[in-house]
Amino acid sequence: MNCICSQRDLKDALIAASKALPTKPQTPILNGIYIVAKNNQLEIQATDFALGVIAKIPAEIEDEGTIVVNGKNITEIISKLAGDIVTISTEEGNSATFKSEAASFSLYTMDAEDFPKVSVQEFQHSLFIKNNVLRKLIARSTFATSNDDSRPVFQGCSVTIEGSTITFVATNTHRLVVVKAKIEDNIEGENKFIVPAKTLNDLMWIINSAREDNGVKIEFSDKHIAFTVNNIFVTCRLIDGQFPPHEKVIPASCETYANLDISEFRSAISRVEIISKQTEYNTVRLKFDSEGLELSSDSYETGKVIEHVNAAVEGPGVEIAFNLRYIQDFLKIAGGDEVRIGMNDKLSPADFRITGDDDFIYIVTPVRT
Amino acid sequence: MNCICSQRDLKDALIAASKALPTKPQTPILNGIYIVAKNNQLEIQATDFALGVIAKIPAEIEDEGTIVVNGKNITEIISKLAGDIVTISTEEGNSATFKSEAASFSLYTMDAEDFPKVSVQEFQHSLFIKNNVLRKLIARSTFATSNDDSRPVFQGCSVTIEGSTITFVATNTHRLVVVKAKIEDNIEGENKFIVPAKTLNDLMWIINSAREDNGVKIEFSDKHIAFTVNNIFVTCRLIDGQFPPHEKVIPASCETYANLDISEFRSAISRVEIISKQTEYNTVRLKFDSEGLELSSDSYETGKVIEHVNAAVEGPGVEIAFNLRYIQDFLKIAGGDEVRIGMNDKLSPADFRITGDDDFIYIVTPVRT
Repeated sequence: MNCICSQRDLKDALIAASKALPTKPQTPILNGIYIVAKNNQLEIQATDFALGVIAKIPAEIEDEGTIVVNGKNITEIISKLAGDIVTISTEEGNSATFKSEAASFSLYTMDAEDFPKVSVQEFQHSLFIKNNVLRKLIARSTFATSNDDSRPVFQGCSVTIEGSTITFVATNTHRLVVVKAKIEDNIEGENKFIVPAKTLNDLMWIINSAREDNGVKIEFSDKHIAFTVNNIFVTCRLIDGQFPPHEKVIPASCETYANLDISEFRSAISRVEIISKQTEYNTVRLKFDSEGLELSSDSYETGKVIEHVNAAVEGPGVEIAFNLRYIQDFLKIAGGDEVRIGMNDKLSPADFRITGDDDFIYIVTPVRT
Repeated sequence: MNCICSQRDLKDALIAASKALPTKPQTPILNGIYIVAKNNQLEIQATDFALGVIAKIPAEIEDEGTIVVNGKNITEIISKLAGDIVTISTEEGNSATFKSEAASFSLYTMDAEDFPKVSVQEFQHSLFIKNNVLRKLIARSTFATSNDDSRPVFQGCSVTIEGSTITFVATNTHRLVVVKAKIEDNIEGENKFIVPAKTLNDLMWIINSAREDNGVKIEFSDKHIAFTVNNIFVTCRLIDGQFPPHEKVIPASCETYANLDISEFRSAISRVEIISKQTEYNTVRLKFDSEGLELSSDSYETGKVIEHVNAAVEGPGVEIAFNLRYIQDFLKIAGGDEVRIGMNDKLSPADFRITGDDDFIYIVTPVRT
């Protein structure tokens, strides 16, 4: 192999591909990034079997070739190079040289034959979605998924595409989020599948660092999904299994509604957290009445906190308790000025929404106190 | 106790005092911060026995009193309060209440009688030093100390005050730093003592967050030292023991001198590090000759790097190797444009200086290769 390419292009491609490097590789070859020089471009691949990334960048190629080098090392090296241009060459023996200005790195290569290349499926369906729309869907859903390995469906977001509406649903069984958005295409039938939250978070990173905003192409079939962001192709297996129906978790109506200024609420919650995080279930008690909202938390080790927040309360007063972290997660990603909380009683799930935003529903099960 | 004070004053005082909270307290009371309301001020103390901090802030006092509350909790609470004013009061039972705007925290108190109050010694000597001068002395010396508990003298900086010169010396036996500065006072005799690097680093933090630049008062006696930065008093025991003489470690003359642009050198070192950190001793080889400097490093796992840096070399060529971290530490805190390295041979200590700055000498023992 003998070629030259832009340092910035190569750096961006390697950082994107690195997202697929496993933290605990099943075999040493998975530590590698696969680089093919051919047809005036470099194709860069990494995979952990579940997730695969392929990035393509333009290159001037004198000799074609294929190498696999340690992904972490090459990404750090190319990121720190000072010159605009990188020369890649292979000599005899198993090493590849990366040069830029006065720096020259020779890295040992691995056998490219051993590399499990990312398989590009035939996809039955495809659609385009705007970068910002997909970012919002991901930001508002993946945080609500579960880390529990024993129930894989909850480690993903259930995605439904029907007509020109796309819906993401995520839950860890204690809280549930439903986010909707419009797409420009009109998709036939109901398409429903579960995408791993990790893939979506990696994709988010790739969208955020995209230099051009050309939209994201989504392709899917029964078992696989792929996202294309400019020159970067991300693909993974869908999660097998049934996502439980979420509609009946959302309260049809609520007896009490409270409207709060979101930044006042966020600030009060950040203080109450100092005490609540020292309790067993990170519990915050909320007491809504005509006076507004009283937040409180009690730790037998530390002491207690009481905080008052202005709230316009409609309907009967209610006392309810939550895991404070679940409220904080919502407030972290909620835009807008006002939050509207719908409640029935201290044991029924509460319904958190942002006033004026019908595309985002957040349901939280109370903590029993 | 019943008093009010400024949230900002109280926050700054608590953060400063927190520097003395031990990470592994010998007794639970050392988790506490001691607060006395008396004579229109709050006095706030914390100590880990080795280090003690006392901060004083103005307060309107209705009822005098003394409390001890968990230092970490109260610092976090006061830091997050939204109002400008904090009210502190004690009720019956063992708790104290801190109120600001709509927030009210009640914290359990500890028995103030149990708190080991910071003892304020009689000091024989005192001097003033400008904030910036002391900051520079600390930044350029503490990094070179040792973490080795078995040799306490190397966990401190040897400070010598003679006439109007103050000198800090620090070493971990593999590298040595000597930093000098002028003070405005003229101190009689030679005064020499060893100050724990931890105290100096905590003090650095306090100087950096000082709202007014009024200089630092240094007081010392045989066994103790104290620093006063505005309203904050920091005191600790000096380290017992003899600091070895450092003068003979500094080469009297060097056969080879190399002058390098500091930012070019820093950038090259940051790349070479990617390989060197994968070697056993973090080794970088330096080859100086009429062509300039060739840096290289070799890892049997990863590969190798060669990098060229422009250098004006005076005297015979030399090949020498160092622990790269030691060069990096120097480059991190070295200001200036050019570094001048004096060397004799591959086994003798090298002398790193910043061109035009005679107050800073850094000696590094080579790695044998």
